[in-house]
Amino acid sequence: MEENTGFWQRAIVRNRHHHEDHGQLMSKMSKYDSLEYQDTFCAASVAQRHRRSKKDVILFDFSRWMLSFFIGVITALAAVFIDVNVVWMSTMKFNLTSGLIRSTEELGPFFQFLVPFIFFIVFNCGLVATATYFVARIEPCAAGSGIPEIKSYLNGVRIPMVVRLRTAMSKVVGVLFSVAGGLCVGKEGPMIHTGAIVGAGISQGKSIDMPLVHRIPMAFLKPFRNDHEKRDFVSCGAAAGVAAAFGSPTGGALFSLEEASSFFNQGLTWRIFFSSMISTFTLNIVLSGVRGYGWGNLSQPGLITFGMFNKATYTLYQLPLFLLLGAFGGVMGAGFNAANTRISRLRIKYLKGNYKMLEAILIAFITATCQFCLPFIMSGVLNQCVPHRPGVTDQAKQFYCPEGHYSDIATLFYNPQEDAIRSLFHSQYQLSMGGLFLFAVVYYCLAIVTYGVAVPSGLFVPCLLSGAAFGRIYGRLISLVFPGIDTGNFALIGAASMLGGVARMTISLTIILLEATNDIQYGMPIMLTIMTAKLVGDLFNKGLYDIHIHLKAVPFLEFEPPHCMDYLEAGDIMSRDPITIPPVVTVEQVTSLMKLYGHQAFPVVDPVTGKPLGLITVPILTGMLINSIFIKDESEADGSRSTFSTGSALPQHFDWYHFSDSVYPRFPSVDKILSTLTESDLEQRMDIQPFMDPSPHTVRTQTPVIRVFTLLRGLGLRHILVVSDDGTLVGIVSRKDLVEEVAESFLGATKGRDRAQTVADTIPLLP
Amino acid sequence: MEENTGFWQRAIVRNRHHHEDHGQLMSKMSKYDSLEYQDTFCAASVAQRHRRSKKDVILFDFSRWMLSFFIGVITALAAVFIDVNVVWMSTMKFNLTSGLIRSTEELGPFFQFLVPFIFFIVFNCGLVATATYFVARIEPCAAGSGIPEIKSYLNGVRIPMVVRLRTAMSKVVGVLFSVAGGLCVGKEGPMIHTGAIVGAGISQGKSIDMPLVHRIPMAFLKPFRNDHEKRDFVSCGAAAGVAAAFGSPTGGALFSLEEASSFFNQGLTWRIFFSSMISTFTLNIVLSGVRGYGWGNLSQPGLITFGMFNKATYTLYQLPLFLLLGAFGGVMGAGFNAANTRISRLRIKYLKGNYKMLEAILIAFITATCQFCLPFIMSGVLNQCVPHRPGVTDQAKQFYCPEGHYSDIATLFYNPQEDAIRSLFHSQYQLSMGGLFLFAVVYYCLAIVTYGVAVPSGLFVPCLLSGAAFGRIYGRLISLVFPGIDTGNFALIGAASMLGGVARMTISLTIILLEATNDIQYGMPIMLTIMTAKLVGDLFNKGLYDIHIHLKAVPFLEFEPPHCMDYLEAGDIMSRDPITIPPVVTVEQVTSLMKLYGHQAFPVVDPVTGKPLGLITVPILTGMLINSIFIKDESEADGSRSTFSTGSALPQHFDWYHFSDSVYPRFPSVDKILSTLTESDLEQRMDIQPFMDPSPHTVRTQTPVIRVFTLLRGLGLRHILVVSDDGTLVGIVSRKDLVEEVAESFLGATKGRDRAQTVADTIPLLP
Repeated sequence: MEENTGFWQRAIVRNRHHHEDHGQLMSKMSKYDSLEYQDTFCAASVAQRHRRSKKDVILFDFSRWMLSFFIGVITALAAVFIDVNVVWMSTMKFNLTSGLIRSTEELGPFFQFLVPFIFFIVFNCGLVATATYFVARIEPCAAGSGIPEIKSYLNGVRIPMVVRLRTAMSKVVGVLFSVAGGLCVGKEGPMIHTGAIVGAGISQGKSIDMPLVHRIPMAFLKPFRNDHEKRDFVSCGAAAGVAAAFGSPTGGALFSLEEASSFFNQGLTWRIFFSSMISTFTLNIVLSGVRGYGWGNLSQPGLITFGMFNKATYTLYQLPLFLLLGAFGGVMGAGFNAANTRISRLRIKYLKGNYKMLEAILIAFITATCQFCLPFIMSGVLNQCVPHRPGVTDQAKQFYCPEGHYSDIATLFYNPQEDAIRSLFHSQYQLSMGGLFLFAVVYYCLAIVTYGVAVPSGLFVPCLLSGAAFGRIYGRLISLVFPGIDTGNFALIGAASMLGGVARMTISLTIILLEATNDIQYGMPIMLTIMTAKLVGDLFNKGLYDIHIHLKAVPFLEFEPPHCMDYLEAGDIMSRDPITIPPVVTVEQVTSLMKLYGHQAFPVVDPVTGKPLGLITVPILTGMLINSIFIKDESEADGSRSTFSTGSALPQHFDWYHFSDSVYPRFPSVDKILSTLTESDLEQRMDIQPFMDPSPHTVRTQTPVIRVFTLLRGLGLRHILVVSDDGTLVGIVSRKDLVEEVAESFLGATKGRDRAQTVADTIPLLP
Repeated sequence: MEENTGFWQRAIVRNRHHHEDHGQLMSKMSKYDSLEYQDTFCAASVAQRHRRSKKDVILFDFSRWMLSFFIGVITALAAVFIDVNVVWMSTMKFNLTSGLIRSTEELGPFFQFLVPFIFFIVFNCGLVATATYFVARIEPCAAGSGIPEIKSYLNGVRIPMVVRLRTAMSKVVGVLFSVAGGLCVGKEGPMIHTGAIVGAGISQGKSIDMPLVHRIPMAFLKPFRNDHEKRDFVSCGAAAGVAAAFGSPTGGALFSLEEASSFFNQGLTWRIFFSSMISTFTLNIVLSGVRGYGWGNLSQPGLITFGMFNKATYTLYQLPLFLLLGAFGGVMGAGFNAANTRISRLRIKYLKGNYKMLEAILIAFITATCQFCLPFIMSGVLNQCVPHRPGVTDQAKQFYCPEGHYSDIATLFYNPQEDAIRSLFHSQYQLSMGGLFLFAVVYYCLAIVTYGVAVPSGLFVPCLLSGAAFGRIYGRLISLVFPGIDTGNFALIGAASMLGGVARMTISLTIILLEATNDIQYGMPIMLTIMTAKLVGDLFNKGLYDIHIHLKAVPFLEFEPPHCMDYLEAGDIMSRDPITIPPVVTVEQVTSLMKLYGHQAFPVVDPVTGKPLGLITVPILTGMLINSIFIKDESEADGSRSTFSTGSALPQHFDWYHFSDSVYPRFPSVDKILSTLTESDLEQRMDIQPFMDPSPHTVRTQTPVIRVFTLLRGLGLRHILVVSDDGTLVGIVSRKDLVEEVAESFLGATKGRDRAQTVADTIPLLP
């Protein structure tokens, strides 16, 4: 053993020779880890796999489907809970304000303005203060829409706290108060995040936040406790969230696919689709019941639906007009993203702790002031009121208007957002140009400022609202030239273009809007509009979700390898001289190694030949330590190969699921383990081979990076070993090495150099 | 060079030690080849890649989208062409028959039966004879729906003739006549195949069937002439076909995804979706115009639409009834598949040449007899006639009924299929139980016999029709217990259950039916019905398309690795002792090798160490031969490494696209090349290294087969090299080795044996 004790000492002096950017970026990314989408195939897990009977497999499959069913149901119930409470609180607020306006009429115009105004401000700021308390104090990860986080998680990045129960609680309660508090935020984005957490929680059946759950024996869930299954269930949950939010089961499934699946899997897609269908159906039943339409009525497929459109008035000839609107949405979206990026950068730099809460309350104050004063000026001061007409329901708000009239802008501001969207989409509500324009601009600006505040906040509804208002204005202008067109259709297209311009999602967004519209005829214009908006927007910047992912320095991998990789080979980008471990080690060696390099995997290398034997991850090493899987008989381990293949190194009925469950999702730190080990334990030896992955994916130094990227991205791997021509291990590639910015930083150093020269010069071969 | 002349002599004595089944299966599969989905990364192609300017990349992308646009448009136009002609011919036939019935009334009942009957028979048989001529004589690959072929192609199997122009012509013309000829076949399946061929044809811009096309200079298409791009365009085309057939753009996109994409790609999915949206939209415009609704009206999204449903009558409580119907559909579907499998086996065994045509005409005769005699007996003999009611259009056929009445069964048989489906789905058409039952049973039996006859024949419409009839009967029975329910809803669910039971498709089928229904509310019942039908059907046999794929011995790979692979390692299933080639060879050696082993790839192996250097395919070797890429200067090649990296072995401006275009999709046979080579050419030496793939995917002998499967299936590879622990090449794995039946044949030999023993015993290492 003497000749290879250096393996972990060398680790300490390990360094990489890149310029500064690279190091900075790497340290920013260091808090993220990759998910392991590939099934574990070590000797110990394969043994378990072979023990499975046919009954086990069927039961396993059945549980999987049952879990997917419950994910759909519970996500829908969470959506109903949010919706009912938001509607209740908003309605109460609007009614109380209206009541105060009526009852203070005798006190004269000044008090008729002041009393309701103060009440409105205090009510809104109070609600938002509650929302921001849940986010800033209880769980910061609940801020925002959660879509960037879910996108990253589904992309294969383990983001701390993102699928924790505590996050879900903060999200659900927080979004109630932030939406009811009148902020320009939607509840649809947070719904997707909530669904994702439901997916993770139900499938795992254990939660760090609720230790009580641990006591419930749920042995049948053990096989689901790994990254692969968990990520699949999170996909189901996110899809169920979309389905509940928009009544769009196909859109939900495609959202998960578009954001998630590198490797398309028929069975998983079907299960995702099942979850989202169950979700929209459950929501339909419960919401129809709760809203008083009758429990079997099935008329409320989503939290937000767009109502019936007057499709007779949309013809082929309007298509170019729609495309123009799409381009406008692209520009507006790019402006939105650019402005929000700057604000977010400032936020990250300057706002900490309680200032975050203060900011939220300040924005609530500004929003409430706008919401109150603008309708007041329009209806009370300028007397811009619309007389009631047949077909106008009690949604129309009188506000400061005389009896028998309503204020158009108050109707938009003083109704639940979903009703406001429908008012914009359907032309029976007469809205004045001035009112529309004010509403659109104010909402657009407020939405820019609001997204990123420390409250749960969706982006869909603000975009839909301001986009629809702009679209309706555009439609009105067009109708001056071509009378008889339906301005509601233009509002729909305007909403699509704004969303397309901000989010730059394509497939799923088209289908979500299509299903919320519930008429296939609108497919083509919606699709072309979103395409145009995305094309135009992409000239300026990226989509808002991608920008926020980037701001968080998440090692996100796109579908296609970036262009710069055309010029790179695996040898250029790999982490050189990786920390390796021999097949048999002492406990002391392992713990020292783990202390130095947490959250990693170590290639297992033959100490004599330098050739890789396999790969072992830190959680599994930890599992071996806490389950005391040491070599019993000294004679068994002669320093080279173990004798596991005949079964002597493991207990007779070694339970792999139990073993992996003990270290998933979290495992004790090395220090904690060290405190439980005695002096003699430290001298014990461990045989790593039964627990290592004996056939990690391996490439050669001259393999094009594009191929390495496709391999890692396509199969959802964490690590790829790089070997030289003679088969010795020279490096390791992981997700972070393949991020566009990182790869680009290598380009300057290698581009144009003679390839053969590069490899020979710079790769220090292992002895 | 002397020490490694044995490489190709050893090839001759190569053999594999498996039992008989394996050999038989392999020889059956030998006519199929894999598509290469991975981009070529040899030094020559990478050089071209590096030369691309940004403008090239944008132009390339733009052409890709334009091609996708035209694929959508042309597929839709083909669909309109088929539809218009079928409707025209069928209507003419029905009108002439009705006219004959009226005009022969004076001749007495015998002649009133005989004259129209003979006319009907002759007309139908004549049309079917034309259809079968196109298939049996011109292009046999145009038979059937083409969906098994397209499924296989998209799965990555190169099937001869499947995307040839001649096939498309035979398919389009044949389906006209087979549908108009009254056979129990639909035009929707062939539409999908046609779309796929349109996709292949437009993107390639060359056709073996139309040498004239070669003259048109289409240099911008050269980069698209490879398996990867072609398969992507075929996906677009197939999706466009579905979209045109059912007015289901999302369903089309998901059909392509479900059947095709191993590796999910956002950009490709968006493009597929674009093609199908364009297709359904074009069809909508043109069909609305042609059918006289007005060119901008947009009311005809697909060849077949289901009309508006009476959704007020479908409630939650009917769900269990729907599931029961789903189970019934599963059983009926399994029966359909079992019966059709037997008939197909007999067909393969006994029917050759002209007998195929005879069979088609015989079935046309039987079908026509049923179609004429059944309504005759019901209306003319048993006098089962229904009086006209308001809401009944001129679709209702009088047939042998008295004035003011119509025959329900004739209404089903004597209208275009799409109208018959709508009659079944909507309850304003009164249909008698007897008529429905006869129609359902006869149609079901005829469809079983007809699928597989030598005519283009879709399966969707027969399944929809008989399923809807069964569903309507079921609905009628239910309405005896619960009066007031809508039997049309049950017809829809019945249709879904029959299709689910026969085709066993899941995601795409649900969405296709959902979009054809155009109401999201039906999503849940349709989905659960299809799930139930599939679950029940799977207890008995596989889906019909899979059965036909199996009958053709196509090496089809499912999404999930089969269970038997749990026990296998790469060393067990690999083809041992593969034919290798050294990096520098003489022309004579290459041609001898190619003569012995066509349609293959050869690992390039270092003659000294036995380690793999790369992989080269036969088309590329052929390209080198026909472009005379030989070593010019003897001193350059000293037997080991070439000096290509400095650019001396290739012409200065070597054009990779031009090179690969010269051998794609077809390349000259070795004999043809040999005839052009002189004696001195044969002595020339070739440096293979710039043209080989220098970093083929490689696994070790002990890699679990599941992982090999995921790698090959997930990334769309053709070959994976297998190396031993010391890095020497010991085998090669290709698609055929991973087919379930093949893998199973290895299981007996290896299961239970000591793993280490197996590997050491049986793998003959290369010297």
